[in-house]
Amino acid sequence: MPARTSLSGFPEWLPAERIVEQHILDQLRETFELHGFASVETRAIETLDELQRKGETSKEVYILERLQDRLQDRNDSKKERPLGLHFDLTVPFARFVLDNAGELQFPFRRYQIQKVWRGERPQDGRFREFTQADIDIVGNGTLAFHHEVEIPLVILEAFSKLPIPPVTVLVNNRKIVQGFCEGIGIDNVEQALRSIDKLDKIGPKGVSAELLEHGFEQDQIDRLLSLASISGDDEAVLDEVRSLGVANELLEEGLTELGALLAAGSKRAPHRLRAELKITRGLDYYTGTVYETALEGHEDLGSICSGGRYDSLASDGKRTFPGVGISIGVSRLVSRILAANLAVASRSVPTAVLVAVVNEEMRADSEDIAYKLRSRGIPTEVSPSSQKFGKQIRYADRRGIPFVWFIGEDGVNEVKDIRSGEQQIADVDSWMPPAEDLKPTVRPGE
Amino acid sequence: MPARTSLSGFPEWLPAERIVEQHILDQLRETFELHGFASVETRAIETLDELQRKGETSKEVYILERLQDRLQDRNDSKKERPLGLHFDLTVPFARFVLDNAGELQFPFRRYQIQKVWRGERPQDGRFREFTQADIDIVGNGTLAFHHEVEIPLVILEAFSKLPIPPVTVLVNNRKIVQGFCEGIGIDNVEQALRSIDKLDKIGPKGVSAELLEHGFEQDQIDRLLSLASISGDDEAVLDEVRSLGVANELLEEGLTELGALLAAGSKRAPHRLRAELKITRGLDYYTGTVYETALEGHEDLGSICSGGRYDSLASDGKRTFPGVGISIGVSRLVSRILAANLAVASRSVPTAVLVAVVNEEMRADSEDIAYKLRSRGIPTEVSPSSQKFGKQIRYADRRGIPFVWFIGEDGVNEVKDIRSGEQQIADVDSWMPPAEDLKPTVRPGE
Repeated sequence: MPARTSLSGFPEWLPAERIVEQHILDQLRETFELHGFASVETRAIETLDELQRKGETSKEVYILERLQDRLQDRNDSKKERPLGLHFDLTVPFARFVLDNAGELQFPFRRYQIQKVWRGERPQDGRFREFTQADIDIVGNGTLAFHHEVEIPLVILEAFSKLPIPPVTVLVNNRKIVQGFCEGIGIDNVEQALRSIDKLDKIGPKGVSAELLEHGFEQDQIDRLLSLASISGDDEAVLDEVRSLGVANELLEEGLTELGALLAAGSKRAPHRLRAELKITRGLDYYTGTVYETALEGHEDLGSICSGGRYDSLASDGKRTFPGVGISIGVSRLVSRILAANLAVASRSVPTAVLVAVVNEEMRADSEDIAYKLRSRGIPTEVSPSSQKFGKQIRYADRRGIPFVWFIGEDGVNEVKDIRSGEQQIADVDSWMPPAEDLKPTVRPGE
Repeated sequence: MPARTSLSGFPEWLPAERIVEQHILDQLRETFELHGFASVETRAIETLDELQRKGETSKEVYILERLQDRLQDRNDSKKERPLGLHFDLTVPFARFVLDNAGELQFPFRRYQIQKVWRGERPQDGRFREFTQADIDIVGNGTLAFHHEVEIPLVILEAFSKLPIPPVTVLVNNRKIVQGFCEGIGIDNVEQALRSIDKLDKIGPKGVSAELLEHGFEQDQIDRLLSLASISGDDEAVLDEVRSLGVANELLEEGLTELGALLAAGSKRAPHRLRAELKITRGLDYYTGTVYETALEGHEDLGSICSGGRYDSLASDGKRTFPGVGISIGVSRLVSRILAANLAVASRSVPTAVLVAVVNEEMRADSEDIAYKLRSRGIPTEVSPSSQKFGKQIRYADRRGIPFVWFIGEDGVNEVKDIRSGEQQIADVDSWMPPAEDLKPTVRPGE
């Protein structure tokens, strides 16, 4: 579906597809603003230092050079600091928080919807330019746990308003895994995470063999695998973990947090928030709850929305800013919606009414009608040509414009619904299209 | 005002400033859609070939390289085609039209609001990343003149809805200048344009001297200068040109077009559309009407919105797509609005109501209230802390949140307007804030 473009990995949409994307972006914005998140946009370009601050080298950064500098083959000393395109919205947001800490009110709630770029190899078939929609809540020094409950509920509310199958947020908590490991005497938590991460691929036996090689004891491994097998959307999850008989303070803290999260989930979004204790992605840098998501029937897409809690989203040495947030891969989602025909736009243009033109001398009369309809909020075009009405109606039909307006010789206007063919007398100062026809709508595909 | 950022030329806005920018972008979108323009977004990245297709080298292109390729010092043969960031929205749109000609309906009306990048030297103080908002109408083979009348009227309507001083669209027409030159025997129209372009800088005498050097005759120069001195917003302009006694068919065609444009302007936007026959910018590549704009009291900004008619916006050798369009420099406009305090946001967050929290055990009660208010479209936050109410009120006050909601011990809720201090009993299922407080508004600055 992201076809027709002469460069792979850079999706572009036709007008009717773009209306679907806009609908999704509008809905996300509306939900985020309902929850008091303020919009931030950061520049697309950061210094390479900033982009690599966290030691990121896997993110396939695009670096920039002025063509003039390249052509003149300037040496590096004359150039400014190397610049690159941002590959996510978290790194730039952390920099923005540090740049503007004195002007922001904490805890600071922001959403950010922008393009990001990753210089993937074209043959990988991945997007190299795509839109992300992020929400984060950032504290100055401290950030209460209840924000870790809030974030997935906002996201579930946002998804519930989109024309897509149900989304489930899958959660785990670093404290549970860390505390559990400590409680059974595992020091090398990172290796435990790396091996558990392969569970779906190599199975429990493969994981077990790998951990044995790394010097884990069989009992430790069995208990780890028992932990990783636990999932569910209610308090039974906590009992299952506790039945493994590991006593550790951090583990208890993590279980208390998970319990609060699952309780809030079952209240606001029953069965849409599940603990999956095998989730390891991000547990190396997140410090509390981590989130992934699954789109029902489209699990092959992978997680379209991920995030978690960082105890140090940003730090300038003196101050530390903890944060919790989540990021939606909008382009990946929209691409699937279009490819699987999950949703379609009712038309390819915003126009609700095309005003027909009798002949070029009378074009101004049609302009007057259009002017009046627009002044009442009705998206209106005037026919670009004064060909036969049949051709003007075809102009509307090809774009999905539902109504064509005709100026009668006697000054009586009529409006035709070109879908039903029904035509009726209409007053330019009071006629309104049905509410569902005023703007393009996005409805489930067939 | 575009301060606080650690990289010059890349403006970023604080939340309250971003609300002003969003307001402007929302208003532009609304006006464009009212006139039936469909949204298009093109990728930010084009091949360097495409960016240089029109021989553009002045636009300071940023070229891209994968960091991995740089680090591994791959030679060029292993790399893909050179890529760069788009420097305007016209070149990518022309490419999009050619890529998708078979899928688009012509004449095709589109708006496009995106960032563009120009690798200006940092010391020039120019923006290197900025947002443009373009509208264009493109035909397949032909495009009627009336669209040249339509475009500036749409733009004037859009500007009239923004919190800015009045905007005037200044127009000229390539046909007038070309026909006039032909009529008085000037072959080197390009030189005539180049010299007239300096009129404001070097005056009529300077222009005269320069044209003499280029072999123009004094009589030709005098008549050119007379033409360039003509301006006005009604038909008198046409009479003034005709009184110069030059007979030429193309000139007459241009004057007829200009007359139609001024007549429509005086009807829909009196005194906001003026002919300025000294305008030369763009006349080398536009083929009909050209547009510039002036913001009253901010003429030093230069033209914040320019465009014109191209007989060949795009061509693939077989087909030619004429177009007419205009481009608003949104970042430059927003930057001035903020710096000159022309408009301010009523608050820095979307939130209308903060629900106070009595104590952490009762946080869920506050969440319930917030849930109900949001379900009726009221942007609501729950207080992040359960400190003393005074502190919770200060949390709201610092962000400009107008209302704080209190849950009474007896189940009776009260809501306080923290600006007036007025507090009243409120029902969570029916209370609404005044319409002007529901969302942040943007009003003229003081």
